Amino acid sequence: MLTYSFADIGSDALYEHLYKCLKADIISRKIKPGEKLPSKRSFAKNLGISVITIENAYEQLMSEGYIYSIAKKGFFVADISSVSSKKQILVDRENLSMTSDEERYLADFSSNRISNKQFPFTVWAKLLRECLLDYQEELLVKPPSGGALVLRKAIAKHLHDFRNMNVDPEQIIIGAGTEYLYGQIVQLFGQDKVYGVEDPGFPKTAQVYQVNGAKVKYISLDEEGICVEELIKEKVQVAHTSPSHQFPTGRITPISRRYELLGWASKREERYIIEDDYDSEFRMVGKPIPTLQSIDVNEKVIYLNTFSKSISNTVRISYMVLPKHLVDLYYKKLYFYSCPVPSIVQLTVAKFIGEGYFEKHINRLRTFYRKQRDILLQEIQDSKMSSLVKIREADAGLHFLLALSISCTDDEFVGAMERQGIRLRAVSEYYQNRESMSTHTFVINYSSLTEEQIKVAVQIMSKEVLLHTKKSIPKKSKK
Amino acid sequence: MLTYSFADIGSDALYEHLYKCLKADIISRKIKPGEKLPSKRSFAKNLGISVITIENAYEQLMSEGYIYSIAKKGFFVADISSVSSKKQILVDRENLSMTSDEERYLADFSSNRISNKQFPFTVWAKLLRECLLDYQEELLVKPPSGGALVLRKAIAKHLHDFRNMNVDPEQIIIGAGTEYLYGQIVQLFGQDKVYGVEDPGFPKTAQVYQVNGAKVKYISLDEEGICVEELIKEKVQVAHTSPSHQFPTGRITPISRRYELLGWASKREERYIIEDDYDSEFRMVGKPIPTLQSIDVNEKVIYLNTFSKSISNTVRISYMVLPKHLVDLYYKKLYFYSCPVPSIVQLTVAKFIGEGYFEKHINRLRTFYRKQRDILLQEIQDSKMSSLVKIREADAGLHFLLALSISCTDDEFVGAMERQGIRLRAVSEYYQNRESMSTHTFVINYSSLTEEQIKVAVQIMSKEVLLHTKKSIPKKSKK
Repeated sequence: MLTYSFADIGSDALYEHLYKCLKADIISRKIKPGEKLPSKRSFAKNLGISVITIENAYEQLMSEGYIYSIAKKGFFVADISSVSSKKQILVDRENLSMTSDEERYLADFSSNRISNKQFPFTVWAKLLRECLLDYQEELLVKPPSGGALVLRKAIAKHLHDFRNMNVDPEQIIIGAGTEYLYGQIVQLFGQDKVYGVEDPGFPKTAQVYQVNGAKVKYISLDEEGICVEELIKEKVQVAHTSPSHQFPTGRITPISRRYELLGWASKREERYIIEDDYDSEFRMVGKPIPTLQSIDVNEKVIYLNTFSKSISNTVRISYMVLPKHLVDLYYKKLYFYSCPVPSIVQLTVAKFIGEGYFEKHINRLRTFYRKQRDILLQEIQDSKMSSLVKIREADAGLHFLLALSISCTDDEFVGAMERQGIRLRAVSEYYQNRESMSTHTFVINYSSLTEEQIKVAVQIMSKEVLLHTKKSIPKKSKK
Repeated sequence: MLTYSFADIGSDALYEHLYKCLKADIISRKIKPGEKLPSKRSFAKNLGISVITIENAYEQLMSEGYIYSIAKKGFFVADISSVSSKKQILVDRENLSMTSDEERYLADFSSNRISNKQFPFTVWAKLLRECLLDYQEELLVKPPSGGALVLRKAIAKHLHDFRNMNVDPEQIIIGAGTEYLYGQIVQLFGQDKVYGVEDPGFPKTAQVYQVNGAKVKYISLDEEGICVEELIKEKVQVAHTSPSHQFPTGRITPISRRYELLGWASKREERYIIEDDYDSEFRMVGKPIPTLQSIDVNEKVIYLNTFSKSISNTVRISYMVLPKHLVDLYYKKLYFYSCPVPSIVQLTVAKFIGEGYFEKHINRLRTFYRKQRDILLQEIQDSKMSSLVKIREADAGLHFLLALSISCTDDEFVGAMERQGIRLRAVSEYYQNRESMSTHTFVINYSSLTEEQIKVAVQIMSKEVLLHTKKSIPKKSKK
């Protein structure tokens, strides 16, 4: 017979405790649908409690539909499975576990997660401990809705020193990841605006705008970046672009196109540009071109950046720089939001920037990635596929493109590599209207790979390229 | 003449450095609009650099509109003020500084921020340091989009033990504050749904739904809570309610109305209930009534709660429990979101709950607040206004209501108190269609007050009540 302990039931009434125990067992299916419950009398005897207590518990369970009674037969467990159990949860493994599927591959060129080994964990932990000591008072007060002032000041100084941007801390809004800020922008402008996103581009950008209720148009790129004519044709009001380093094409928008974009925005009051500067810290060669924000005298540019790539993707701090008149609108319209980033993390990042660690970290990362890139480029050059590949856009950011002389489709090549344990994505996969396009160009994110992985991956890739090269197309056999 | 140092210009070209210096000074108005710049020749001589360098810097500044040239006269600073400087930023002080306006009042009954002194800072700091040591690996990996599994497991166990809810960790989604989760819900269901919010209620709830693009209807309350008839009449699809402790009325929805609400939701596929359980931990008297979530066998309830009140409002962790079929929809529609809460904070909260500190903390807070409430109630009873006040809804949560026998309007009384340094809000202020309603009922949030503040505030209030009491209405003087 069912037995439950009444030892530590806290302040619950006895019947409540019994009701809870039974309910939990019914829900977890320890007691199955249709199963008969003990009679009130025998159950009471067995548990050493009164019949009234059993009665009350059964009544509660009946009123909630967990059990039912049949006259002269007794109490039976209801079938609640039709509602709650049959529906399986289709949760991706990734959504639950702490580990990613990184390990499933010999090498993964598909994502530009930063190398964790480069994260200055000891410094970070030290600063965090210092913040716990130094800011005890501040840590208990809700930060202002735009973010902790000390962090906004540190970011303003950083932007001034490294991106030549003159920004008031007031213009900076701290967010929990760039997706959060995309959503805030839609809420700032309203859901009725038309957003133009780059095609090809990060699929997530368009997805976030769309689930926030905004209309999205996919705008083609030409060699200089996002097409201004198409922005006009598609009646775009807010253009989202990454002129410093477009993903996936790797293109850098020249200054002339930047002025054209600012010109486009200046022509209509409702037009704005979102400048997503997601990996500008990792320019490998040459001087950076001024950000749109820094040459915008017309208050048309919202500048966005994140520390996910430059510090660690577990930090989840991003920020946007609003033009001054939009700062007013922001606080008028969205004043009721609290800053979503915990104070302790804001203050630690502020210290990390303010005490010079961020600059050192970026420099070290840049050197490290440059070395990785060079090893990878060298390996490719030394491989048997060297005459069959062209490297494109290797000067900025954490990825470049590999154009291959192969005869199969992009999907076929990606599939062949996947079977060999190498994850790779074709540029064509990032196009919205892809249809059966094959550009034979692949995105090479190299930031998280070890030297060993690079060597193995290039060897495997080289073999596959030679197998699929145009030269190897079987000649029509003579009949 | 303008002088700039070329000592540490890093990898900048000379002209770039000069261009940056000039631009910065023009923007900061160190060099005023209309001011003439030095001639190229004399400037070059003064700085000890070539004329070509000056020329390049001037050209860049011209192309960007910062300076202009007049033939045979030279180079002049453009007036960029019309665009960028005239517009003043109307930033609320609160949005920038770290301190709130709490100190401006002798006592503030208007907000239920939790008392910082109760926060177990030492334990918190210890756990945070432990997490830095124990979870080095996990801290560098992006948490799954629903939140760190260890935290979701801890929450599921907590809900099981203290709210009698049987929840899979998969059903829990971690968010950065409840506002973030309100937004996610709108994105989950789409912007075309009609949300019903309680009137009176937290203004922020409706505001967040509205800026996210959803339609909002204000639904009246009766003595039992949100009106089901009105939900039907207003064609509400998603009802937002706080049955455990409504704000500001303090009402607790009885079990019968809870079943009615579940019945309403079950009648149409698109109907759902958002159960906002924001301060249920602080029930002062009696047993809690089961949550809607725990008696919902039809998967119609989204349960929401936050640690802002129960741990600290700087923690910014909230969570929602989705019915199982909505878990599928969530990952299908919003899979691309990253979890907005930094891993370190998630892991520390998980430890805080898992190692029993959360329970201890809640119990200590509850005892502390109960004592505060009792002092406040006693002070009121001992005061001269005792016969002129009625206390309402003092059994749950961190506020109760004070009904006063006064003859002035609510606004007049709030104003009179404000002039005495006491911040207070009338229940009528939380009504959407307030017009000139005066209920003479005021919201008393007592959680952040010291004993001293309570005493002073009751004295002042007592004096004001006696001044404004109905008895003191001047009788018509005989003519």
